[in-house]
Amino acid sequence: MKFLGNKYLISNDAGFEIYKTIKDLPIIDPHSHIDVQEIVENKNYPDIWQLFAATDHYVWEVLRKCGIPEEFITGKHSHEEKWLKLASIFNQLAGNPVYEWMHLDLRRYLGIDTLINSETGAEIWRRANEILAQKDKRPQQLLKQIGIETICSTDDPIDLLEEHAAVNSAFGRRIIRPAWRPDRAIKIGNPGWRNYMDSVARRFNFKLGSIHDLTAALKYSHDHFAKHGCVVSDNGVETPFSGVEDPDDADVIFKKAMQCKELTAEEKNVFMSYLFGQTAEMNAEKDWVFQIHMGPVRDVRDYLFHKLGTDAGGDVCNYYQDHLTPLKKFLNHFDSRLKIVLYNLDPGHQAMLASLARTFGSRVRLGAAWWFLDNPTGLRRQLELVGSVDVFACFAGMVSDSRKLLSFGSRFEMYRRVLSDVLGNMAERGQAPLELLIELAETMSYSGPKNFFSL
Amino acid sequence: MKFLGNKYLISNDAGFEIYKTIKDLPIIDPHSHIDVQEIVENKNYPDIWQLFAATDHYVWEVLRKCGIPEEFITGKHSHEEKWLKLASIFNQLAGNPVYEWMHLDLRRYLGIDTLINSETGAEIWRRANEILAQKDKRPQQLLKQIGIETICSTDDPIDLLEEHAAVNSAFGRRIIRPAWRPDRAIKIGNPGWRNYMDSVARRFNFKLGSIHDLTAALKYSHDHFAKHGCVVSDNGVETPFSGVEDPDDADVIFKKAMQCKELTAEEKNVFMSYLFGQTAEMNAEKDWVFQIHMGPVRDVRDYLFHKLGTDAGGDVCNYYQDHLTPLKKFLNHFDSRLKIVLYNLDPGHQAMLASLARTFGSRVRLGAAWWFLDNPTGLRRQLELVGSVDVFACFAGMVSDSRKLLSFGSRFEMYRRVLSDVLGNMAERGQAPLELLIELAETMSYSGPKNFFSL
Amino acid sequence: MKFLGNKYLISNDAGFEIYKTIKDLPIIDPHSHIDVQEIVENKNYPDIWQLFAATDHYVWEVLRKCGIPEEFITGKHSHEEKWLKLASIFNQLAGNPVYEWMHLDLRRYLGIDTLINSETGAEIWRRANEILAQKDKRPQQLLKQIGIETICSTDDPIDLLEEHAAVNSAFGRRIIRPAWRPDRAIKIGNPGWRNYMDSVARRFNFKLGSIHDLTAALKYSHDHFAKHGCVVSDNGVETPFSGVEDPDDADVIFKKAMQCKELTAEEKNVFMSYLFGQTAEMNAEKDWVFQIHMGPVRDVRDYLFHKLGTDAGGDVCNYYQDHLTPLKKFLNHFDSRLKIVLYNLDPGHQAMLASLARTFGSRVRLGAAWWFLDNPTGLRRQLELVGSVDVFACFAGMVSDSRKLLSFGSRFEMYRRVLSDVLGNMAERGQAPLELLIELAETMSYSGPKNFFSL
Repeated sequence: MKFLGNKYLISNDAGFEIYKTIKDLPIIDPHSHIDVQEIVENKNYPDIWQLFAATDHYVWEVLRKCGIPEEFITGKHSHEEKWLKLASIFNQLAGNPVYEWMHLDLRRYLGIDTLINSETGAEIWRRANEILAQKDKRPQQLLKQIGIETICSTDDPIDLLEEHAAVNSAFGRRIIRPAWRPDRAIKIGNPGWRNYMDSVARRFNFKLGSIHDLTAALKYSHDHFAKHGCVVSDNGVETPFSGVEDPDDADVIFKKAMQCKELTAEEKNVFMSYLFGQTAEMNAEKDWVFQIHMGPVRDVRDYLFHKLGTDAGGDVCNYYQDHLTPLKKFLNHFDSRLKIVLYNLDPGHQAMLASLARTFGSRVRLGAAWWFLDNPTGLRRQLELVGSVDVFACFAGMVSDSRKLLSFGSRFEMYRRVLSDVLGNMAERGQAPLELLIELAETMSYSGPKNFFSL
Repeated sequence: MKFLGNKYLISNDAGFEIYKTIKDLPIIDPHSHIDVQEIVENKNYPDIWQLFAATDHYVWEVLRKCGIPEEFITGKHSHEEKWLKLASIFNQLAGNPVYEWMHLDLRRYLGIDTLINSETGAEIWRRANEILAQKDKRPQQLLKQIGIETICSTDDPIDLLEEHAAVNSAFGRRIIRPAWRPDRAIKIGNPGWRNYMDSVARRFNFKLGSIHDLTAALKYSHDHFAKHGCVVSDNGVETPFSGVEDPDDADVIFKKAMQCKELTAEEKNVFMSYLFGQTAEMNAEKDWVFQIHMGPVRDVRDYLFHKLGTDAGGDVCNYYQDHLTPLKKFLNHFDSRLKIVLYNLDPGHQAMLASLARTFGSRVRLGAAWWFLDNPTGLRRQLELVGSVDVFACFAGMVSDSRKLLSFGSRFEMYRRVLSDVLGNMAERGQAPLELLIELAETMSYSGPKNFFSL
Repeated sequence: MKFLGNKYLISNDAGFEIYKTIKDLPIIDPHSHIDVQEIVENKNYPDIWQLFAATDHYVWEVLRKCGIPEEFITGKHSHEEKWLKLASIFNQLAGNPVYEWMHLDLRRYLGIDTLINSETGAEIWRRANEILAQKDKRPQQLLKQIGIETICSTDDPIDLLEEHAAVNSAFGRRIIRPAWRPDRAIKIGNPGWRNYMDSVARRFNFKLGSIHDLTAALKYSHDHFAKHGCVVSDNGVETPFSGVEDPDDADVIFKKAMQCKELTAEEKNVFMSYLFGQTAEMNAEKDWVFQIHMGPVRDVRDYLFHKLGTDAGGDVCNYYQDHLTPLKKFLNHFDSRLKIVLYNLDPGHQAMLASLARTFGSRVRLGAAWWFLDNPTGLRRQLELVGSVDVFACFAGMVSDSRKLLSFGSRFEMYRRVLSDVLGNMAERGQAPLELLIELAETMSYSGPKNFFSL
């Protein structure tokens, strides 16, 4: 019953046995938003706000929800003022995973056991900043302490990936790999798309006269990523695409868009679907994993979008989305020749996706409970369902979706503890022998993803 | 393991600690269907059927489900015959919350511990009726015993609200406030709409020549309600409206309807959406809370509708409803200037709504699990999800949706016990310190709603 | 904590008390896919693969998921090779109900307690086959050991049902009844429909000149089934039909289809809906139960469909389906004059269906969690919800959907244990007296379905 104690999130003895065997396994994280430049530079963090909150929209959102004005979140106030404001309402976050993650980070990596609240905010600010000034609290040192084996960042096809090489050279091994995320090329309806095409043209010294030029440029990028150790791509979509379209149709639409002509919703869909399919084709050729992050309805709150632009936390999940129609086509088109991970956002979609993943064999896998689902309730409910409908041993494993360096530790700890609790419960109920569930926990925490992602 | 014992619904020690601190807090209920006239008159209830079942479609439905003929529910038989019929099948209701609520009411307010069944029905009828004849079992006395601080009734804009003043004067304090529910004005497709317009015209001595006259009349009503202490409105909708429409379009439709011309589905929607928006605007001006009760598909069973009319229990929930599209527009239109509570009926909608409430800041809140969700399973599942995605401290709190006077007690007891169990579980799992969860329970049971609703 | 021990799936003392009173009740199963011919012949099973896996797509799917090639599942390899392959990956299935069912079958009916895995596969093959060669391990003997009182098979309207009579005569009592499943007549879009019409014509010596001839032929079949003890029909649909259509429209469409002319999607729907309604009408006349199995999206994986045809395991559930619109019409049309069981596949539909079943009285009932829901998690979640929204006492009870003889035992054991656990939990939480929950468990395991289905 101790806050974040040994048995944190684990309610049964078998679960505790299981957790002991997996808690120190190295971390493999095939999807994060780590800032690679930050790791290359390896400078000490100036303060706890920078490390704990400045870059993390998971934190921003709950602060806003508690009525903190934007100036104290992404705005003009000093980091100290922001931290103290956060501390002043932190008690209100009890029950939300941010409350647990922040305290975990504070304990596990800064050695501070104090509860964050209005009375302790100033003291934690002082002590944490002192500790963060130590040599062993720099990014590279922290990654070692967290026990990272391999993480994938999220990268645009035009990235040069020079920082990745620098990090790996500093570590003397491949600790970080890029992930190829062609969203900006695909999302033809986005305001920045046309300019992005110019950037693509410049980056690869290509003239983009047709859709074939664009796919050729992307193919060049794909090869470049492969040379830098990439083994996965990411696609973020509200609803997946079938990926099966006529290239001539796509070409006509592409040329229209290049001339800045207005496209219909249907045209945008055809183009996006075509390119989605083409990037999947590239993955199939190299046996990369194609990660589909589906569901988020983006930038729902105008106020945030106008003030901060995209990816500021104004996103929601939605049960009312038809994922099956396009996925059915897509999965059949790439049946057995493409490794796919399906990440979904609304819990209502999980049963369908579990039954679909089960049907399409071992190369199609369910991904971790993510974002609004990445909390003890969401993780537990998903795992109970995955095990029942699909096969636990084929689960794609945890990803951090990390927006800051420490998240790798706290997210994976939470996942491993919930997993231990769920499997432990099964042991206690006589659903499988404990020894087998210990093996399974290891597979689901480490060797399973390591093998599937070829990491 | 005692039926309705001390630890009823509470499975862990921390939960029991929490419950002890909140069980006697006063009740604040911003949404009920209390019969105000009944409280003014303050007459003894003639019998237990009248108090326990005669006005409560939650009870009617489960009796029908068990095969009781309608004559023994809403029909011609005597109250005694009805009660005995109910008792004869009451064992079959075990597992449904009606079984628990009825027994709670019997124990807590009539002091009768007997189980309701075919053998005890006659005895309970006799004893309960004797007790109900006592002076301290009249409505006003019961409300005091239940520990009511403030309740909101549900009232039509044309109501004079004279009874509210009478009740408050009898109590010497404002125990009951009206809630403004303009559904009958908004639902232009309902058969009674045209006649209702005449009632509105008469009530306010307005000629309703245009939509502006109608909104002016409603504004007059809104002001009248404010003078009588109203701080909330209610809107019951199958699917919410955006509230953003052209007033000229609405005016044309209004005039057509006033001439009893047929409207298209699209026209009805535009009109309803417009007036929905206008009433929200009135709330925004007065800083009232705008309560949206969304989801019920009404009068699904023709047999009941033809026999008993609307609101007879023939209603269902439905997962297949697009709430996000209109809500997105509505919430952006009123962003930060309107206090909103979102009540939903289908559990499949909760994750979307939690992510939406989280995104739109502290003035948009999730409301209590309601109707088909108002039971230990529904309450627990919703609370686990709210805490994980949204922020517990910003939960709008419990409402009884009460159809009879005793419901205030049993509904709030059930909620507080489940809440204690959920938070206690978090304490036991080390997710937050117990002291903090005790504070949170208090906020979620009393001070949170009190502040948010300005009650 | 013993694998499949006494307390398997039961986590509380009250649950164990409950289970003791229901575990040996006879089995009544109104929906299975039992092979009646196999029971008539009553030959020993040649080997464990034949009895445990050869006919069961629940097993096939998880083997495929674990990467077993099709040749080792439905393909050309020997039963021994298939069994050894299954054993080699069986550890990976821990957590999936197949892992539990197979071990239950092995223990309860073959007396083998060994865990199935790569090391024990050969030994189990040898021992199991020896045991299966014993006289008391033939189909009829096994059915007695399992404790079957009555099971319904699934039969096509053109079946002669001679085997049913043979089985019942062998048992000296009616242990097996047919169930009338007119899917092949209804599904006018299926490739085999036109040929099937010829089979219908031949079977009943009818000329099918109009839709009236077809319904007359089906009526003849319905009567024939009744003579053989049938009391239920089955309809498998992706989405239900209203059943209310103009017979003249249906007739035009029928004649078009008989001439092998292409039909529009709308025409197919009208025809299917009409015949769905007509078959329901036949059931209403005879007071049979109309079982609707709704939700499966069939043959989603092209590879399996092309290789193995339909019903090979390439099916999924889907939340994105509008069941309410047609069901509302259907249930009103047959209100109070037809017994209906609603089986659904996606867990997201359960709350709507529970509220609908509650509304339409005691003749409309929710059916068991089925297929992707038939596992401890799916069963538990459904039962918690059914009890809360609908009435436990009116639950339609368990069905095995059995694809092999032993499934009757393991499926019903799992259901009864989960039911005991859920009800036991309610007792422990003081939600109802234990004695009453024991009665309820009996109703939900035996007498409830026995009465409702008239079995």
